[in-house]
Amino acid sequence: MSVLVVGSVALDTIKTPFGKEKSILGGSATFSSVSASIFSPVNLVAVVGDDFPKTYLKVFKDKGIDTKGLITEKGQTFRWEGEYGWDFSDPKTIATHLNVFATFDPKIPKEYKNTKHVFLANIDPQIQMKVLNQVNKPKLIACDTMNYWIEKKKKELLKLLKKVDVFLVNESEAKEFTHEANLVTAGKNLLKLGPNVVIIKKGEHGVLLFTKNHIFATPAFLLESVYDPTGAGDTFAGGFMGYLAKCKKYNQTTLRNAVVYASVMATFAVEDFSLRRLCSVTASDVSKRIQEFRKFTTF
Amino acid sequence: MSVLVVGSVALDTIKTPFGKEKSILGGSATFSSVSASIFSPVNLVAVVGDDFPKTYLKVFKDKGIDTKGLITEKGQTFRWEGEYGWDFSDPKTIATHLNVFATFDPKIPKEYKNTKHVFLANIDPQIQMKVLNQVNKPKLIACDTMNYWIEKKKKELLKLLKKVDVFLVNESEAKEFTHEANLVTAGKNLLKLGPNVVIIKKGEHGVLLFTKNHIFATPAFLLESVYDPTGAGDTFAGGFMGYLAKCKKYNQTTLRNAVVYASVMATFAVEDFSLRRLCSVTASDVSKRIQEFRKFTTF
Repeated sequence: MSVLVVGSVALDTIKTPFGKEKSILGGSATFSSVSASIFSPVNLVAVVGDDFPKTYLKVFKDKGIDTKGLITEKGQTFRWEGEYGWDFSDPKTIATHLNVFATFDPKIPKEYKNTKHVFLANIDPQIQMKVLNQVNKPKLIACDTMNYWIEKKKKELLKLLKKVDVFLVNESEAKEFTHEANLVTAGKNLLKLGPNVVIIKKGEHGVLLFTKNHIFATPAFLLESVYDPTGAGDTFAGGFMGYLAKCKKYNQTTLRNAVVYASVMATFAVEDFSLRRLCSVTASDVSKRIQEFRKFTTF
Repeated sequence: MSVLVVGSVALDTIKTPFGKEKSILGGSATFSSVSASIFSPVNLVAVVGDDFPKTYLKVFKDKGIDTKGLITEKGQTFRWEGEYGWDFSDPKTIATHLNVFATFDPKIPKEYKNTKHVFLANIDPQIQMKVLNQVNKPKLIACDTMNYWIEKKKKELLKLLKKVDVFLVNESEAKEFTHEANLVTAGKNLLKLGPNVVIIKKGEHGVLLFTKNHIFATPAFLLESVYDPTGAGDTFAGGFMGYLAKCKKYNQTTLRNAVVYASVMATFAVEDFSLRRLCSVTASDVSKRIQEFRKFTTF
């Protein structure tokens, strides 16, 4: 089954201790749609400016992603500039230019309206809600967010959470949202807000998955070759949704496996700048890394 | 087989968001010996002052720990006062009074000299070396340390690492020791210094175990009831050594299981102040928690 991805497509300028790259392909919808496409067909809804390079459009086409919903508007593409230190924790934002993304008002093409899996990447929760109002009874809705929306639009986010099945947050967002330092309590409290599944992403420390009757904890895939962590969370979310859309089942086993597959997908995102490594990933690359994952976590 | 534990026995004053307790039983050798005693006989070498309460001596006796090597000297027992915030990360040290511990010069009783498993808890690496010079060919030697010794006595610590089998550090110590932000690289670099086994403890984020040909990663046991994290690392180390002394084998399987049992032991240490919960732990309590651990990590 297909996955509908709605979010940002951006041109990033990224500095890490390993180098600086200007105007490279980025954005939450970019990483998540390419990641999901490894497992399932993907329908993309996003906006770019008329400066958006054709070679970057080809990235989506090459992955078989449906870009009917990727609109080109007059003006510049959303641009973000960030810098990471050696520890690769939260980047310092140097500049954000929303450009055409400032007035993003996603119209879901009629061919997409019956997509059964919907991933609302990190955008204004009011826009995320507008997307939900345009789709017909999806089987699984997941949403991401960020500290900015937790601080500025908590009411709208709370309203959205009553409509979504899976809520993905990182560690600091979970703590800020719930005012709770213990992540187990934080995860349980987030479940009470509506979602059936809460996922707390802890970066290099792994992932916690909360459902009503179970908690699943897994370490991250062990990786020495981290060059640019941009998009890791989006790649995780895309892999998670793509895997479940392929399984068409959402039980404890498929959810746990989806977390592991998603974690493995994220490792490909961080091994090079932009989507360079992620774009060339094959099903066999994923299988190999899943086997390695089992090897270093089994006891 | 038995475990020889050498380290500190202390009277702690601890403040956490859940309360403040004065002059409670603490110290690295205390937590690690009680934890090891769940699995194997323990010989304890430490020093206390003549102010040390008899009820606290009874704690060791009740666990069957041999206290021939626990010397009482004239003066006050080592005292430490610390305070934790809501996130239970590194405590703020309010006061440290070494007292009789300032001149600790461990003499290993002749009955202990053939102990096959030796745990050198966190003390001056020169004193740790002095202990090794008094024992007869142990099968397995483990040592812990702290940032202070990494900064002040790195040369002595490097000399010691050539003699030990297992080196236990926490995340910040591993990074500081190796000047490496990536923990996988840090662990591999520590292996090159001599030990066959390196363990990086990440608190609530779990543990990494490094051997020449394998890496094992595990999340921490999920716990909402954290009241006082003092002694968690020592309890982990004691559980690790006690479990291996019981197995009498040090292969990949027993090492991984030892990490899991050690992680579970640490959860009992943090559920109450001092050793209150840890002291009452039964083999059945441990088994139950191991089963839970499997439940929330299996995929």
